[in-house]
Amino acid sequence: MPSFGLRHRRAWASLFSQLLRPSGLVCIREVHFHSQGTRDLSPQQMVIREKILDMVVGCFKRHGAKRLDTPAFELKEMLTEKYGEDSGLIYDLKDQGGELLSLRYDLTVPFARYLAMNKVKRMKRYHVGKVWRRESPTIVQGRYREFCQCDFDIAGQFDPMIPDAECLKIMCEILSGLQLGDFLIKVNDRRILDGMLAVCGVPESKFHAICSSIDKLDKISWNDVRHEMVARKGLAPEVADRIGDYVQCHGGVSLIEEMLQDSRLSQNKQALEGLGDLKLLFEYLTLFGIAEKISFDLSLARGLDYYTGVIYEAVLLQTPAQAEESLNVGSVAAGGRYDGLVGMFDPKGHKVPCVGLSIGVERIFAILEQRIKTSGQKIRTTETQVFVATPQKNFLHERLKLISELWDAGIKAELLYKNNPKLLTQLHYCEHMGIPLVVIIGEQELKEGVIKLRSVASREEVAIKRENLVAEIQKRLSES
Amino acid sequence: MPSFGLRHRRAWASLFSQLLRPSGLVCIREVHFHSQGTRDLSPQQMVIREKILDMVVGCFKRHGAKRLDTPAFELKEMLTEKYGEDSGLIYDLKDQGGELLSLRYDLTVPFARYLAMNKVKRMKRYHVGKVWRRESPTIVQGRYREFCQCDFDIAGQFDPMIPDAECLKIMCEILSGLQLGDFLIKVNDRRILDGMLAVCGVPESKFHAICSSIDKLDKISWNDVRHEMVARKGLAPEVADRIGDYVQCHGGVSLIEEMLQDSRLSQNKQALEGLGDLKLLFEYLTLFGIAEKISFDLSLARGLDYYTGVIYEAVLLQTPAQAEESLNVGSVAAGGRYDGLVGMFDPKGHKVPCVGLSIGVERIFAILEQRIKTSGQKIRTTETQVFVATPQKNFLHERLKLISELWDAGIKAELLYKNNPKLLTQLHYCEHMGIPLVVIIGEQELKEGVIKLRSVASREEVAIKRENLVAEIQKRLSES
Repeated sequence: MPSFGLRHRRAWASLFSQLLRPSGLVCIREVHFHSQGTRDLSPQQMVIREKILDMVVGCFKRHGAKRLDTPAFELKEMLTEKYGEDSGLIYDLKDQGGELLSLRYDLTVPFARYLAMNKVKRMKRYHVGKVWRRESPTIVQGRYREFCQCDFDIAGQFDPMIPDAECLKIMCEILSGLQLGDFLIKVNDRRILDGMLAVCGVPESKFHAICSSIDKLDKISWNDVRHEMVARKGLAPEVADRIGDYVQCHGGVSLIEEMLQDSRLSQNKQALEGLGDLKLLFEYLTLFGIAEKISFDLSLARGLDYYTGVIYEAVLLQTPAQAEESLNVGSVAAGGRYDGLVGMFDPKGHKVPCVGLSIGVERIFAILEQRIKTSGQKIRTTETQVFVATPQKNFLHERLKLISELWDAGIKAELLYKNNPKLLTQLHYCEHMGIPLVVIIGEQELKEGVIKLRSVASREEVAIKRENLVAEIQKRLSES
Repeated sequence: MPSFGLRHRRAWASLFSQLLRPSGLVCIREVHFHSQGTRDLSPQQMVIREKILDMVVGCFKRHGAKRLDTPAFELKEMLTEKYGEDSGLIYDLKDQGGELLSLRYDLTVPFARYLAMNKVKRMKRYHVGKVWRRESPTIVQGRYREFCQCDFDIAGQFDPMIPDAECLKIMCEILSGLQLGDFLIKVNDRRILDGMLAVCGVPESKFHAICSSIDKLDKISWNDVRHEMVARKGLAPEVADRIGDYVQCHGGVSLIEEMLQDSRLSQNKQALEGLGDLKLLFEYLTLFGIAEKISFDLSLARGLDYYTGVIYEAVLLQTPAQAEESLNVGSVAAGGRYDGLVGMFDPKGHKVPCVGLSIGVERIFAILEQRIKTSGQKIRTTETQVFVATPQKNFLHERLKLISELWDAGIKAELLYKNNPKLLTQLHYCEHMGIPLVVIIGEQELKEGVIKLRSVASREEVAIKRENLVAEIQKRLSES
């Protein structure tokens, strides 16, 4: 398991020390849920969110990625025919004159558009941003119509499966680092899927429709999926049964070997290519020490149209207690290879092969937030180091002069916005907000040219010469 | 001038060392400009952007603010009647069923909505996020239809002018810290403005319209503004002339005193309240040591409807060279007091007084970007510390094992995604990307259980026992 470096580990541990306990019941619930299917994030929630993003971005940087940003909306035409059945979930902007625009649905299509527009042939980038989907909001699953995605992608023509293996390594590092409990990454390949459908006798015109049925296997049973294929999508029952034999298989390298020998599948060129690549991928995953986290799963289809090769999806494994409550947090990270997408944006159709992953921040956030709530842990929402107080009336001017000195020295400081606050009110504020130090100025101190420095935790006070105050505070803060 | 603390100062200095030079010609120009009036931010641009945001957010945290986040879109009805004449610039979403939605126009209205919805009576928060306005994009001024805002606001009933003074202190700290050159913050008060219009003889129904004319005085001359008032907004010429006498005034505390004695203005209760508050404000600004940066300016109007008290706007002062080229970057930060906005969202109309500021990141970004381009300074877009190389063929497996160890130890590392890259290609990559260290593994090293560690700058190589490699790299990185 990755260890990340001391500074990261400490910051994480201090906030999420409670998370190290074996995870019990995880019940995801949200209170402030707007009628439009979005939500505000309170300061407490923002602290958790920022810690998650710091961890994720830290990992992306560890793997040498550059940061990119694209606008919230794209030309509507850029987004059409990229998302298959999900295209209906795209938010369009009202036609107020000018181009027709839509809110971005993911960060992958804007990345491909960026590469094509700027003729970039090679790039390792990450992108943290919001995306919007008009889905039925499911509060229980932590699913909203606006949500944050963290994407890492490698674009460029390279030797097979090296970038793909790194993407899986990154997913493992992030999911281990976030201490979410045990997880598994399902892997498949679009070429194996297509090959399988072909050898089972599915007409090519129905590939997309059948794939999106298979994609539901993590949510509904094989019988229900089979019914959808036969009754709603017009597949012959015996074809559906052949598919059923495959999509209920999952395993490691041995399953790949088995499928390479499969009498039907081994006749299909595409499937063979996919299986060959997966075999190589597992070789690299073993070198990265993560092969046991990865499962070759023939039912994994991924809904999006643009994938062309290896695809993957990470799921958290449920504890028995969770399984009993039939709680399903679904996938927390996913991705795959999309070698054709950039070419769709290039006037001459020039292709740039890409592979990448997306971290599902909202679901991870929902789990961690619930865990912190359960633990009763208090979260500091400010970083204030010093509070400027006075026991006397008519000391606002002195307080303002003093706090200004602290701010100018880079010290995080607050005071109460009252002309004559009570000392007790001021000290209570510090305890309530977790501010560690108080500087107190009164008539006596002013006369003697000193300031009292008080530790909120120990309640000890010492008098310090005014000119030494900043240095003394900085010393104390660096020690703590 | 604030000094901020060593760590911040160093990071800033290392990137923007060139900015310390006296600023010469600042020409703002952008290349990648989409037809929809938005733009992508390249990795180089993101590095600059992130540095600006770090500095701004660091200042907000120094003043004890909590972070908040709200959705990109709000219910359309929430945004109506908040922005005056600018309401036509709001982006609406297409009606695809459900509520009518609009993209947020600023971060202030969502903050007020949040306070009212959650019945929060007191809060110091910051918010960094994108907002959208359907303006005619002006590339020269660094103005886009999507742009980033950084807002800091203090909500709550407090003694007068203390939070207001802190907002101006924050603007000074940020603008000084960013080393943008000399700046000035214009201050006025809506009550003074309204009182002035009243005593000049403007009918109350025309206050808004006349205010928005006055607001153009930083862009067009008094004669043009006067013409607009008389010809387009139907004001009597003598009324316009009376306004002209006031709005061409600006100065410090002495101007406030003068206006307090003004025969007409002193008859107006509102104006007197505003002037009294401004007098108190300047007292606090003097204690903060920033009074000389602030100018009382009777022409400052601010377009937005929701302001009720003090208003302010920071402008960069032009160097003679800039003035000659008539470059105007406009305001880089602005804000004011809005005591009535929260009440508009509360079912019972309960008010929460608020004051805040917004940093215009895009314009600051445009200036800094241009300055870096002019300086020819190279910006590192990744943070990679170590590159894993080999001089031999068929060493991919060893490279993958080695880099995996580095990643797991929290070290930022990269390799080339090739089975057999040339050593020279690998070393060139390090020089090109500014990666400081290379670890080299070959047959000889493998046999001896060592790794070669190479400094890219000095080209010195030392052999290190494999088991000591991580510790040695961490030592070198902590020293540099």
